Amino acid sequence: MRRFRLALINPNTSRQHTAEMAQAASAVLPDGADVEALTASRGVAAIETAAEAVTAAAEVLELVRSTSDVDAYLIACFGDPAVEAARELTDAPVVGIGEAAYRATTMLARRFAVITTLPRGVPEIETQMDQLGVLHACVGVLSLGIPVAQQGAQFGDTNEAIVAAGRRAVLELGAEALILACGGMAQVEGVVREQVGVPATNGVAFGALLAFSLWRAGLRTSQVGSLAPPPPVPGAAHVIGAID
Amino acid sequence: MRRFRLALINPNTSRQHTAEMAQAASAVLPDGADVEALTASRGVAAIETAAEAVTAAAEVLELVRSTSDVDAYLIACFGDPAVEAARELTDAPVVGIGEAAYRATTMLARRFAVITTLPRGVPEIETQMDQLGVLHACVGVLSLGIPVAQQGAQFGDTNEAIVAAGRRAVLELGAEALILACGGMAQVEGVVREQVGVPATNGVAFGALLAFSLWRAGLRTSQVGSLAPPPPVPGAAHVIGAID
Amino acid sequence: MRRFRLALINPNTSRQHTAEMAQAASAVLPDGADVEALTASRGVAAIETAAEAVTAAAEVLELVRSTSDVDAYLIACFGDPAVEAARELTDAPVVGIGEAAYRATTMLARRFAVITTLPRGVPEIETQMDQLGVLHACVGVLSLGIPVAQQGAQFGDTNEAIVAAGRRAVLELGAEALILACGGMAQVEGVVREQVGVPATNGVAFGALLAFSLWRAGLRTSQVGSLAPPPPVPGAAHVIGAID
Amino acid sequence: MRRFRLALINPNTSRQHTAEMAQAASAVLPDGADVEALTASRGVAAIETAAEAVTAAAEVLELVRSTSDVDAYLIACFGDPAVEAARELTDAPVVGIGEAAYRATTMLARRFAVITTLPRGVPEIETQMDQLGVLHACVGVLSLGIPVAQQGAQFGDTNEAIVAAGRRAVLELGAEALILACGGMAQVEGVVREQVGVPATNGVAFGALLAFSLWRAGLRTSQVGSLAPPPPVPGAAHVIGAID
Amino acid sequence: MRRFRLALINPNTSRQHTAEMAQAASAVLPDGADVEALTASRGVAAIETAAEAVTAAAEVLELVRSTSDVDAYLIACFGDPAVEAARELTDAPVVGIGEAAYRATTMLARRFAVITTLPRGVPEIETQMDQLGVLHACVGVLSLGIPVAQQGAQFGDTNEAIVAAGRRAVLELGAEALILACGGMAQVEGVVREQVGVPATNGVAFGALLAFSLWRAGLRTSQVGSLAPPPPVPGAAHVIGAID
Amino acid sequence: MRRFRLALINPNTSRQHTAEMAQAASAVLPDGADVEALTASRGVAAIETAAEAVTAAAEVLELVRSTSDVDAYLIACFGDPAVEAARELTDAPVVGIGEAAYRATTMLARRFAVITTLPRGVPEIETQMDQLGVLHACVGVLSLGIPVAQQGAQFGDTNEAIVAAGRRAVLELGAEALILACGGMAQVEGVVREQVGVPATNGVAFGALLAFSLWRAGLRTSQVGSLAPPPPVPGAAHVIGAID
Repeated sequence: MRRFRLALINPNTSRQHTAEMAQAASAVLPDGADVEALTASRGVAAIETAAEAVTAAAEVLELVRSTSDVDAYLIACFGDPAVEAARELTDAPVVGIGEAAYRATTMLARRFAVITTLPRGVPEIETQMDQLGVLHACVGVLSLGIPVAQQGAQFGDTNEAIVAAGRRAVLELGAEALILACGGMAQVEGVVREQVGVPATNGVAFGALLAFSLWRAGLRTSQVGSLAPPPPVPGAAHVIGAID
Repeated sequence: MRRFRLALINPNTSRQHTAEMAQAASAVLPDGADVEALTASRGVAAIETAAEAVTAAAEVLELVRSTSDVDAYLIACFGDPAVEAARELTDAPVVGIGEAAYRATTMLARRFAVITTLPRGVPEIETQMDQLGVLHACVGVLSLGIPVAQQGAQFGDTNEAIVAAGRRAVLELGAEALILACGGMAQVEGVVREQVGVPATNGVAFGALLAFSLWRAGLRTSQVGSLAPPPPVPGAAHVIGAID
Repeated sequence: MRRFRLALINPNTSRQHTAEMAQAASAVLPDGADVEALTASRGVAAIETAAEAVTAAAEVLELVRSTSDVDAYLIACFGDPAVEAARELTDAPVVGIGEAAYRATTMLARRFAVITTLPRGVPEIETQMDQLGVLHACVGVLSLGIPVAQQGAQFGDTNEAIVAAGRRAVLELGAEALILACGGMAQVEGVVREQVGVPATNGVAFGALLAFSLWRAGLRTSQVGSLAPPPPVPGAAHVIGAID
Repeated sequence: MRRFRLALINPNTSRQHTAEMAQAASAVLPDGADVEALTASRGVAAIETAAEAVTAAAEVLELVRSTSDVDAYLIACFGDPAVEAARELTDAPVVGIGEAAYRATTMLARRFAVITTLPRGVPEIETQMDQLGVLHACVGVLSLGIPVAQQGAQFGDTNEAIVAAGRRAVLELGAEALILACGGMAQVEGVVREQVGVPATNGVAFGALLAFSLWRAGLRTSQVGSLAPPPPVPGAAHVIGAID
Repeated sequence: MRRFRLALINPNTSRQHTAEMAQAASAVLPDGADVEALTASRGVAAIETAAEAVTAAAEVLELVRSTSDVDAYLIACFGDPAVEAARELTDAPVVGIGEAAYRATTMLARRFAVITTLPRGVPEIETQMDQLGVLHACVGVLSLGIPVAQQGAQFGDTNEAIVAAGRRAVLELGAEALILACGGMAQVEGVVREQVGVPATNGVAFGALLAFSLWRAGLRTSQVGSLAPPPPVPGAAHVIGAID
Repeated sequence: MRRFRLALINPNTSRQHTAEMAQAASAVLPDGADVEALTASRGVAAIETAAEAVTAAAEVLELVRSTSDVDAYLIACFGDPAVEAARELTDAPVVGIGEAAYRATTMLARRFAVITTLPRGVPEIETQMDQLGVLHACVGVLSLGIPVAQQGAQFGDTNEAIVAAGRRAVLELGAEALILACGGMAQVEGVVREQVGVPATNGVAFGALLAFSLWRAGLRTSQVGSLAPPPPVPGAAHVIGAID
């Protein structure tokens, strides 16, 4: 089998998040897979508003433009910034961890709940579910009131709060699976599955496999219609130069 | 009546488009209104792909951040880039010309057609209509095959093509009104209305009035929930500095 | 600027409501605007059932037919009775205060709540939101249990109940704006905005501006397709004669 | 079995249409059923616009209020004017022929086409299908360009046009059944079924049976919530007096 | 009137349920109607999972194939197993009790609640409502936590629990009617209507009348398109032989 | 990496189809994967009606029950028979090739067309797309008029017809990718991609990878709520015995 090279793009500026997500992806990809992890050079360390997501989207496209010899891309922010736009720039498959999480979950359960960081992000998550056609299967979005900066396996209190929210979703709302709506929750999947007893995913590991699967099945991003390659963007090229 | 100051933001880099759209807005606003016209400093002169729209969205937010003492914003690109995100940055009303055109039209007609520039933009327009809840009222999206760069009152062939498409939409598809899906079509509204005999708008003039109306009715963008002001974005601040 | 003449049609028979709504409209229209306020001569003083709305709709059309030299119409009942049908009778723009309230609010907030009078009206409001494509953005419809007859700035208890419901909607349901679903709440907008701290509207003032904006942008109701003028209605003509 | 008394309300003023529809209903009801046929005293002989439907709706409610000792109502105009509102005025079941036609058809076929009179009515029919939740099953609405006044078994050309449209719908659009969207087409059902070879209905005969079935199953219109009886309408009562 | 022969198919194996449902159907059909009651020979006595419904669906088709000289079919399991598929096998009308219950209820009330047996069935009921286009009218699905095996007029505790759930749905959720989502609740309709004071149905009695109404109106299942008779199924024929 | 054992279940009785699909799956799975291919023992060799799909669904569940020590299931019929029900019987992931094809395609293109065998299957495919939330992205379903029995790489005329339909979908309908809606088209993917120039899939190869990915990411089918294991089905168990 030819080697598979995945570009994992972290749209925020936290190199620690990048490392944790790359580790989660590498752990599940088959032998012969390389993960090239890229981190946004501008923006915020934690994307929690739509305005921040706009900046992140621009970063994602610049990082896609900066790569070469890549077999597939994983955009590793739950809001899937610029995932559709990135598909205009490459014929390699492009997967977002948000869509990956929803796709996995609706194959494992009829009803799921989403656990997210701050209440302010709930409307965006509902819009995302609507656009992906999965809103009817969601029994609730529970926000922890804990920001992205305090997500990750090393934050014990956060993990406990996630488990508590997950139990409530299963017992009171009828959730049959959990979606962890933050790239920073990659290392928490295991503990949630074990302690709540239902499937749980944030889309990083499964998203890496999804990107691999598209590539492996010989499927490439379409190059016609709305996905025909756009003409080069002068301004953006200039900015890339500035970053170098 | 206190003076009304509208910031009209052109997300593309064409100063000529900015001037034409500012003229269209000024022509309809009541006495005592000032239009401050702003042009993107990076990106493309004509936004025709989702990737270009991502760059444009980042420009919109920087221009919003760069203004002060503004009563309302009009984002003058039909795709409404960053309109929702911009609402996180200000309590002044923010209106997109795309949404303005759809809102006007559905108050004037039960069925409408959209006339756009290139075929590749059709899926994005359909998504926009779906998100605005007006897709059911659209009888068709007709693309001219003429790029943004050749839109405007001075391009006679383009105007003729728009009129021909409009007639076809009315006679064959049952359209009762026309939406001109390009900021560059601002000066063409009149000729289309006259020659096709149905309401037609691209949202620039009406959008300016919509922004005025929200302000005049004492309505301001919400400052709570998902619209609470985000914390400052370090990277973006740096870029604003670079622009100054 | 040519003078603008707005016909404000109150579909219920309460002349006091008509006067209050006309005052709210006049207060925000630009200089050079006249408001002609019309009151239904048959029906009820407060429209709270679908059966009453049917009678009101017939009154609206008779009042539209009875006017001349009008630049735009505002149908000033939150349920928007006969708004679509009225568009068949005139090429002047016709706006309903219900649609006006929803259109304003979704440009100011991602999530809103509706505050209404009696519980029995809730299904109709949900149907209205569905037809306007805004149901997904509504976090709840709260009914006061206070009839239309006790709405208005002079009813202190009602105002307090509205403010209390609004606070609950913001704090418990995640509302970012409030819609006051009764024409009789026109004078209460200000106090709700101030005490709850979010945008609030019942659509009367903004609806008047919306009608003005359509007219000012040169947009007229379509005269083709389903909006081609109908043949004269013998029975209705008879009734108009009776009114004269 | 206790006798069943059905009030068949024709919302237009054509007594000939009333008689034909009453005949179609009587022909299928079981023994022991009486059909009381009522005709609108105001309005038009053929309802073809939304404005005319508003007048018709008011007539329907007055006719409902004028009856007594009725077991069920059939509102015999395809647009179902005032059907929902009438349910507030009685605990007898109220059925519209439009909803009856759609309900029958979706139990007989996965895909259907609608054949209607004039093109201008198409948007209203699409809205009706959307509200009834059957729009996805409709492969097209074909308008004959023949007004209501020329519908009926005695118009040979009209019948031929309906059969031709039906054949086209089956062969070209994939229709598996036909809906005849006009009360005046009641006597044409048979010829269409025979010549096109698929189920066809305008809802009059089946609607009468549907009303009977609800009554016979002991089901009565709800009297709580939005269907609690409204208080008497002074104006409307006055009008009823005027009619007497 | 020609005699009407209804095949009532019970997809589960409980002959007692079959008898009760046949009794409910016979009690309401007009004179001259015969009910042929058929019971599944394989599967479970109470269908409570999707896997069980698959087995039941296959049984339904075998029972349909085994009948002859039948005017209409009533599939008497609330989940409507194989109702659409059965329409491929016959030109007689085929009605499911689930769809019958929803169709009756939405003609009697704007909002309803569903009362079901076990919580695990709730997602399937929501899917059913979505496919029938009635989900928007449902204010809630309340599960009793009592299995099908303990449904029926003879289980006093179950009946009390149903009444209690019904009252809660009316008082707290705004239900205006109740749907009893189990074929085994046929004999409970009356007590619920009386004690809760709103329309209530499980679709058996009304479904029998609906099947009669289609037949009586001369409406037959379409025989074209997706409903053209399929070629014989060798395996299934073999099984029918085995049953004989 | 632990070995991965996939049960590929062919719901029709054609062992040749089973072999071709197993070959397609094996060709793409990573090293260390075993494909156990199972064929329905009853039913038809080509599933083309809903009634046949009911029989097939029952076969699928029996085959699932007959397996042990399986890591994941691929239900290899485009209509996804019993996929949801099968999830009640196992905690191993269960994937249908229909859903796999739609999930892959919507990550590669904004608009796609479906190419299917017979016209009669079109409504079922539209229902499937609606339930999966992808209907908005489909520009058309093109039927070849060629039955399943003549699908496969060895039928040159069929392949040519598929390529011709695909070209038409791209050029005339704006398709950016193609879905081949038949398990028997597994070997045709490559030729379509090459000759039409867009992504094309029937979901067999990608579905096998999807099942692998879920398993590899540690994701298992939920065991709670509607997916809690059902009690044993006596009749079904009996049948399994008969098969042995």
